[in-house]
Amino acid sequence: MFFASDNGGPAHPAVMAALARANDGHRMPYGVCDWTDAAVALVREALDAPGAEVHLVTTGTAANALCLAAMSQPWQRIFCSDIAHVLDDEMGAVTFFANGAEMAPVAHTDGRMAPADLFARIAREDPRRRGPVSVTQVTEAGTVHTLGHLAALVAAAGDLPVHLDGARFANAVAALGCTPAAMAAGMTAVSLGGTKNGCLGVEAAVFPDPARAHALWARRKRGGHVLSKTRYLAAQMVGYLEHGLWLETAAQANRKTARLAAALANHPDVTLAHPVDANIVFARWPKGLHDRLRAEGAQYYLMEDGANRPADAPLLCRLVCDWSVEDAAIDRLLSLLHAG
Amino acid sequence: MFFASDNGGPAHPAVMAALARANDGHRMPYGVCDWTDAAVALVREALDAPGAEVHLVTTGTAANALCLAAMSQPWQRIFCSDIAHVLDDEMGAVTFFANGAEMAPVAHTDGRMAPADLFARIAREDPRRRGPVSVTQVTEAGTVHTLGHLAALVAAAGDLPVHLDGARFANAVAALGCTPAAMAAGMTAVSLGGTKNGCLGVEAAVFPDPARAHALWARRKRGGHVLSKTRYLAAQMVGYLEHGLWLETAAQANRKTARLAAALANHPDVTLAHPVDANIVFARWPKGLHDRLRAEGAQYYLMEDGANRPADAPLLCRLVCDWSVEDAAIDRLLSLLHAG
Amino acid sequence: MFFASDNGGPAHPAVMAALARANDGHRMPYGVCDWTDAAVALVREALDAPGAEVHLVTTGTAANALCLAAMSQPWQRIFCSDIAHVLDDEMGAVTFFANGAEMAPVAHTDGRMAPADLFARIAREDPRRRGPVSVTQVTEAGTVHTLGHLAALVAAAGDLPVHLDGARFANAVAALGCTPAAMAAGMTAVSLGGTKNGCLGVEAAVFPDPARAHALWARRKRGGHVLSKTRYLAAQMVGYLEHGLWLETAAQANRKTARLAAALANHPDVTLAHPVDANIVFARWPKGLHDRLRAEGAQYYLMEDGANRPADAPLLCRLVCDWSVEDAAIDRLLSLLHAG
Amino acid sequence: MFFASDNGGPAHPAVMAALARANDGHRMPYGVCDWTDAAVALVREALDAPGAEVHLVTTGTAANALCLAAMSQPWQRIFCSDIAHVLDDEMGAVTFFANGAEMAPVAHTDGRMAPADLFARIAREDPRRRGPVSVTQVTEAGTVHTLGHLAALVAAAGDLPVHLDGARFANAVAALGCTPAAMAAGMTAVSLGGTKNGCLGVEAAVFPDPARAHALWARRKRGGHVLSKTRYLAAQMVGYLEHGLWLETAAQANRKTARLAAALANHPDVTLAHPVDANIVFARWPKGLHDRLRAEGAQYYLMEDGANRPADAPLLCRLVCDWSVEDAAIDRLLSLLHAG
Repeated sequence: MFFASDNGGPAHPAVMAALARANDGHRMPYGVCDWTDAAVALVREALDAPGAEVHLVTTGTAANALCLAAMSQPWQRIFCSDIAHVLDDEMGAVTFFANGAEMAPVAHTDGRMAPADLFARIAREDPRRRGPVSVTQVTEAGTVHTLGHLAALVAAAGDLPVHLDGARFANAVAALGCTPAAMAAGMTAVSLGGTKNGCLGVEAAVFPDPARAHALWARRKRGGHVLSKTRYLAAQMVGYLEHGLWLETAAQANRKTARLAAALANHPDVTLAHPVDANIVFARWPKGLHDRLRAEGAQYYLMEDGANRPADAPLLCRLVCDWSVEDAAIDRLLSLLHAG
Repeated sequence: MFFASDNGGPAHPAVMAALARANDGHRMPYGVCDWTDAAVALVREALDAPGAEVHLVTTGTAANALCLAAMSQPWQRIFCSDIAHVLDDEMGAVTFFANGAEMAPVAHTDGRMAPADLFARIAREDPRRRGPVSVTQVTEAGTVHTLGHLAALVAAAGDLPVHLDGARFANAVAALGCTPAAMAAGMTAVSLGGTKNGCLGVEAAVFPDPARAHALWARRKRGGHVLSKTRYLAAQMVGYLEHGLWLETAAQANRKTARLAAALANHPDVTLAHPVDANIVFARWPKGLHDRLRAEGAQYYLMEDGANRPADAPLLCRLVCDWSVEDAAIDRLLSLLHAG
Repeated sequence: MFFASDNGGPAHPAVMAALARANDGHRMPYGVCDWTDAAVALVREALDAPGAEVHLVTTGTAANALCLAAMSQPWQRIFCSDIAHVLDDEMGAVTFFANGAEMAPVAHTDGRMAPADLFARIAREDPRRRGPVSVTQVTEAGTVHTLGHLAALVAAAGDLPVHLDGARFANAVAALGCTPAAMAAGMTAVSLGGTKNGCLGVEAAVFPDPARAHALWARRKRGGHVLSKTRYLAAQMVGYLEHGLWLETAAQANRKTARLAAALANHPDVTLAHPVDANIVFARWPKGLHDRLRAEGAQYYLMEDGANRPADAPLLCRLVCDWSVEDAAIDRLLSLLHAG
Repeated sequence: MFFASDNGGPAHPAVMAALARANDGHRMPYGVCDWTDAAVALVREALDAPGAEVHLVTTGTAANALCLAAMSQPWQRIFCSDIAHVLDDEMGAVTFFANGAEMAPVAHTDGRMAPADLFARIAREDPRRRGPVSVTQVTEAGTVHTLGHLAALVAAAGDLPVHLDGARFANAVAALGCTPAAMAAGMTAVSLGGTKNGCLGVEAAVFPDPARAHALWARRKRGGHVLSKTRYLAAQMVGYLEHGLWLETAAQANRKTARLAAALANHPDVTLAHPVDANIVFARWPKGLHDRLRAEGAQYYLMEDGANRPADAPLLCRLVCDWSVEDAAIDRLLSLLHAG
């Protein structure tokens, strides 16, 4: 019963197969090879961005920090929601890569900034310090921005460049039922995640307009993110994107999550903390129930520090499904929930 | 005929097999798993350093930069040979991770600093700016320091910490016929390479005394080098170290290189530029010969910019063998060399 | 009618006289001189900190950033009020000097953080990222923390070091009627301002316990803040501190401000926005009144951007008095206020 | 007998007088005042650069580091002589302000890079890492580049921007007998020093073409180098430049130095180590003579660490004259030299 993260599952067999196919003969290192070319072509095709600059890296932190660094000056601020992953969960990676640019958090509702709040925060900032905006899709609260909401955030950003943190890009596309290109519309840079949705560890930092990707290769090299045997990153991305695997695994993860969320929503002791749009559930339930689930081996995260919560308050739990979560695990969790 | 790099070959089947074994079920992300534990245990055992702090990353640049950053202050200098990889080939990664610490190059002979030169360079430095020393083993010139030479460099460093850039650690151990622990003796930190010697992409940053690894986890996270699905790095390292695979592949690469070097040394138009101790050959031969080899598909690097060399001077060529280079490729190269 | 800033007035004649006295003969540069020794001795005496490490610099930004950099790691956060000068008014200087440490703002009331809010914000932070706390006294809202409030903030910080941004240190001491040492109690570092209160440009970065001032000289040099002819900074500080000039000029500035504030408080169209404890007044009055004052030559800052305010709302105005503001200027302003 | 530095003398009375004149009434802070306007106008006029961007700061380190930061990317290298002040004497200030750009030293003769050596060093560098060139005039060896030499260095730099570290700009102009503008020809940025030649502490960072001064104000603010009471920096610069004072004091310092150097050159136990072109003498004399001079109170620097020199070798001594050195001090030193 593993619901702790979509970083915990295995790689998809098709991705492993691509890796095995790539493990053949010699290739020039550092990105000069057929596999890298193929991966870049597939990313461009997926986003309908034929001239895009595409950089494959191993972590979402690297993809986000590199994208935002290329869009910022060291004395600028980067606008994001106040629960953004780039704000709190990366030990200051963005500020590190951006040589000092700080984050400027904006209030969120269910993980989404209101366009008017973003606009007001930018207006309040010293114009010399106005840097890029970063939007997370799927949000850290498990919700998905509509295309209209994304467009409104891009409009609120005005002349400022906008970055889409798409660690769960495919899950959002599957949820919206739109094309990947439609979801990337208006973005200066996109972090397109593979790791959480079937890969071993690969993310693409994408600039649809390569003129905006200022010195990204130098930044990546300097950050230790130019792998020598690039083909093994590229092969994962090829296996992930070709034949639309990524959208299938994402849809599957979303469906499993929806089933879980629906059952939770009907449970008398459980409250959903946010709408469930993709593959993440935030729910509250009593400590007694939590203790029982844990004792039976359910794995998920508690999101609040005990110090900041009354002893008898329900606990805020986060459950995530990746494509590989088995129906049996969900069944077991649900039966435990109702067995109390 | 691929001799361009030991970054160009495939991963060893045993490493691929470990990867496949690891691709099973769910694991907690970010290093909390059985595979990571096993990899760390094997690294500690290899270096006879039971309490060592071990961090798995994907590039040598990351391993080197993280090690040196943890040993430096931003205003210090890092002493290294003037052909050190950390000096010239990483787009300033060390300075980036070390928040500004600069490199202080010391003259080399065949890639090795003389202990007296290192001592004198340190003595000349403002004491407040004396940071760590970095020694590359196998050197960038393809030579290997004797254990005595390493000990003399550690002695010359005095109180300053010493880092071993061991991108080809196993090749050096195989060349010296010593234990890995003997080669790491006296080192504050070791970058222990896997990528060039049979892995897909994994290096270990190792601090035998964990008290010296100041905030390495935070630095790694901040650098985007904490992979979520760590088991795939760990599995590579397990496959690489268990049953002594790493020393076998390294010995094999060295043997192939020795055969190549011996033949080159006997060729009338070829001069070896440095002693060949491990798996790298630096040799000079005429442009006519080079053109012929290239036309036949031989891949290796030219090391000098045309602008800095007389038109008719022999070319400085670098040839590298990894474990996977086939004898047939060497035979073919040698027959082409003698066919002129 | 200059009320725009306490950075706008002339230097006090006694400070100018000290400067003239110091302009005699040769001195060794970079702080090795009698004048520097005398200034350091006076700062130590003022704070009753006989072993304190004292660094003279030319700006409050430098003093604050150097102090906080010496107390932080690059991946940590620095806790401060959400209107702190170090947060918003220095183009990211703290983050720059601290090699990436970010600010973590805490809500304020009249410029002061509630100890419980500070405690909760620290508790919420990843323990590895908990860096120093910075408290401004006189606050950016013109109020003064009581000694009890300061002690409670120090207690809330627990093991974390605390920095006092004392750009208006003397004004706060004068307001509290305490000793300078009492106000610095519990502080790891103090920025002790001179510029706003009678000097040309000098601030002291002070660490009562020199063991906490990690590499401050190196940081200062690297920041371009080691002046060669240090005696001219030192002489200002000597003229400022000897014979208690600093507390006299501060008391005088506070008295003038109190008179101004009292008159404003009684005006029917004026509202004070914060209590007036020292030498800064925040008041709101109608745009018509503002236009009249401006037309007559009154200089003060408007604190809100027009974009964020209804057209007919009263304007938030900041008026500051330094020691040199003439009573006639206050009289004139008040008569204009009542002439409408 | 103070010959330790041209940072040791008093400020010129005309500079002190300008300071006193400026100490009158209120002025808007942060550079918005008549004094700043006047200083900027005088700098522009001096360099015949009517649109130049001019920033007044308090140290040469700040002027150099800010200029070079505005001309560099974090992953680039900055080319300079291997005894450049920016390389060795500023605790890494350039790298700090330039967010990581490293120095690339080029061999010097008497403090001057040969244009061919500079060209070759640049050619050898990865094109992506080619940053600006910094040339010191007066050099750290006390020599002065001819205008032709400067032009040849600018030509060798090709498309790369060139910075002139003119901490002793006026001494060089006086030595060359040219116009200040002629000496600044071809430079993208100039550090124009005041401190060593009669001021208390002021230097100008000047970009003749303001389009090249990328975000210099933000960098300066972030570095803590925007003084609030700017008029006191500006007044020094006004007193220094108006009526040509700067060129008079520089010529006087050079004349005194020439007399000292001529006498030293004729002394049988003394050897000049470099040509003496401006106000710095490098000379070698025996330890016995040195001990006698020190005992009599002569102040100058020894330039070599004892550890790196045979016990009986003559000592390398640096003597510097500023405008205020008295003829009597020179007479006394010379009579001591001949009294042995």
